[in-house]
Amino acid sequence: MIALPRVGPGNGSLSGADRRLLARAIECGRGGWGRVHPNPMVGALVVRGDEVLGEAFHAGYGGPHAEVSALAAVNDARGATLYCSLEPCNHHGKTPPCTEAILAAGIARVVFWAAEPGAQQKGGAEWLRSRGVVVDGPFGNPSEWAAENPVFFHNPSARVPYVALKLAVSVDGCIAPAAGRRVWLTGEASRREVHRLRAGFDAILVGTRTWEADNPMLTARGAVVPRVPPVAVLLDRRGRASIGLRALRGRPGPRSIVATAPHRARDLAGRLSGCADVVAVPVKGKRLDLAALMEALAARGIGSVLCEGGGVLAASLLREELVDRLYLFIAPVIIGEGGVPAFPVGESGEPALETLRFRGWKSVIDPSRFGNDTLIVLDRGD
Amino acid sequence: MIALPRVGPGNGSLSGADRRLLARAIECGRGGWGRVHPNPMVGALVVRGDEVLGEAFHAGYGGPHAEVSALAAVNDARGATLYCSLEPCNHHGKTPPCTEAILAAGIARVVFWAAEPGAQQKGGAEWLRSRGVVVDGPFGNPSEWAAENPVFFHNPSARVPYVALKLAVSVDGCIAPAAGRRVWLTGEASRREVHRLRAGFDAILVGTRTWEADNPMLTARGAVVPRVPPVAVLLDRRGRASIGLRALRGRPGPRSIVATAPHRARDLAGRLSGCADVVAVPVKGKRLDLAALMEALAARGIGSVLCEGGGVLAASLLREELVDRLYLFIAPVIIGEGGVPAFPVGESGEPALETLRFRGWKSVIDPSRFGNDTLIVLDRGD
Repeated sequence: MIALPRVGPGNGSLSGADRRLLARAIECGRGGWGRVHPNPMVGALVVRGDEVLGEAFHAGYGGPHAEVSALAAVNDARGATLYCSLEPCNHHGKTPPCTEAILAAGIARVVFWAAEPGAQQKGGAEWLRSRGVVVDGPFGNPSEWAAENPVFFHNPSARVPYVALKLAVSVDGCIAPAAGRRVWLTGEASRREVHRLRAGFDAILVGTRTWEADNPMLTARGAVVPRVPPVAVLLDRRGRASIGLRALRGRPGPRSIVATAPHRARDLAGRLSGCADVVAVPVKGKRLDLAALMEALAARGIGSVLCEGGGVLAASLLREELVDRLYLFIAPVIIGEGGVPAFPVGESGEPALETLRFRGWKSVIDPSRFGNDTLIVLDRGD
Repeated sequence: MIALPRVGPGNGSLSGADRRLLARAIECGRGGWGRVHPNPMVGALVVRGDEVLGEAFHAGYGGPHAEVSALAAVNDARGATLYCSLEPCNHHGKTPPCTEAILAAGIARVVFWAAEPGAQQKGGAEWLRSRGVVVDGPFGNPSEWAAENPVFFHNPSARVPYVALKLAVSVDGCIAPAAGRRVWLTGEASRREVHRLRAGFDAILVGTRTWEADNPMLTARGAVVPRVPPVAVLLDRRGRASIGLRALRGRPGPRSIVATAPHRARDLAGRLSGCADVVAVPVKGKRLDLAALMEALAARGIGSVLCEGGGVLAASLLREELVDRLYLFIAPVIIGEGGVPAFPVGESGEPALETLRFRGWKSVIDPSRFGNDTLIVLDRGD
């Protein structure tokens, strides 16, 4: 549940009923996960008095916006209130402006949550006000809006994609009982949620040990079928990937990417010919330069990356402060002595992770329970 | 939110609206936290069609039950449905049976969640059915009911109280950056929640190092004023407590308890005379025998204990499998090298905690967010 303030930074205030309905619009918008990117998830409600006349979410990139779908579901919206999770757009894009549809439908009041950040799209609230519609919004603050639609609100001038790291840990912060020993800490429900999460990302990244040990497909095989299947990205500094890997062949969607050291690239590309794109990434210390990899992915149009393991990759990403969001699945298990820590302290020659201390990490999204596991979502502070 | 099944083990089934209303009754019941013990928390709703006519929770031990209060809030309940989180009682106790009030009010249908466990109180559903009321329930299962009202459902023949352990840990499972160095890992909102939790327990237990370092009051100073203030219990094997401690003097409620080794008891009792009750507890290894302490507390009528620290006490309680519930506050902080683990592996001569592995621990209560912290509630399995 989004904690909504009573008063917005600019215009208007929210009653208890307003807040309940606006929260419902935000939740409704989540139905677009995996289907609307790079658009934001948006939900909208048409309400008269206590009655919700219509409810919709933006359901697919290029398709109608939530506001328009919600209005279309209502016979007569004259005098009603429209609740929406994002400021109605004021722009002729793939579809006509929502503002015009709202005015034409005779909506008397619009209550919205997040301010539209797009230079072309914004101005909807002002436009509607100038036409006599009561408009209350925005409410909340940019970091809350960004937590709900992180990829959409990711800095458009950033040279790197939005990076999320998924970790499954025990209550004592370990990811495995011993190096090289792999167990499922989390249960079935958590693994289903990971498949759902995958559907909302452009790429899934794993480290060398993970694909060597598990030979994962790295596809989104959950309830949400992604509009565009995520690209699999494998780290492979030594150039050992083979065409037999399940992440490279017989996989739906765009060609997979294998990142390797520059001097391995040509040979590897030859061996993987037709199965994957090989991307040469500078080596930094004993590892591929992850910041350079992220820039290379951004240059290929990849706007968001879900990093899934293993521990070495996770620690490197955290150490280099490349992680925007942490999906932390906590299993009710103690691993104890000899366990592999999810957040290892420094190795020789590398700064200890402890120096980061997660200062400024925030929890904006409520935690959820998946079977016996808990998912905590932590977002990097400003 | 309680996950309610569609069909109960015995009688009846639930529509979507039924489940929403029954969940609301359960949540409503939580208003009784800290005020109703040793009674259960119970909520009730009187509903006609879509309209909630009345809503109430059992608000105080000895006072009216939720069902009766909800009915009293309604002008005419004839033909309405009563949703309640516990089977209506069929017993003349401190108040007349709820079943008679329900029948007298003309309620047509009763939907309840948990079966009444009390030998004297149970049978309400059957009694109402025999009088022509439609009764649907119970739904869910005993471990879910117990998670909601753990002290009430705690085995009445147990020789020990219901024991909850509160831990505040970093994401890497540590409670402090170094032995003896104390920091607030969690934020203000979590600390307020701890005060609220305290109000629902008969006693608050802390280990020696905690009271020596912090000199805590161990009172419930939150939004919920407990009906009976919890008793402070201090571990003090060496008998070093003094009357200056804030947990021993100037404190509301029952006299505090100091647990010490038998050969220290007489001397300590002399020094603390009038300020606290000294309880002699056998020594086991280098520590007080915690199982024996719990039995001694139960013998004094203490039905529930919240254990708040520190790490040595927590590890001992877990090792001896005395913990029924873990309140795990997780702060978005990495402690790193040198940190004090919340779940330490074995010391010399003691079994490693890892051997417990939390097998069978369950998450039944949804996690909650307190500021940037997350509270995970884990209940011991059967």
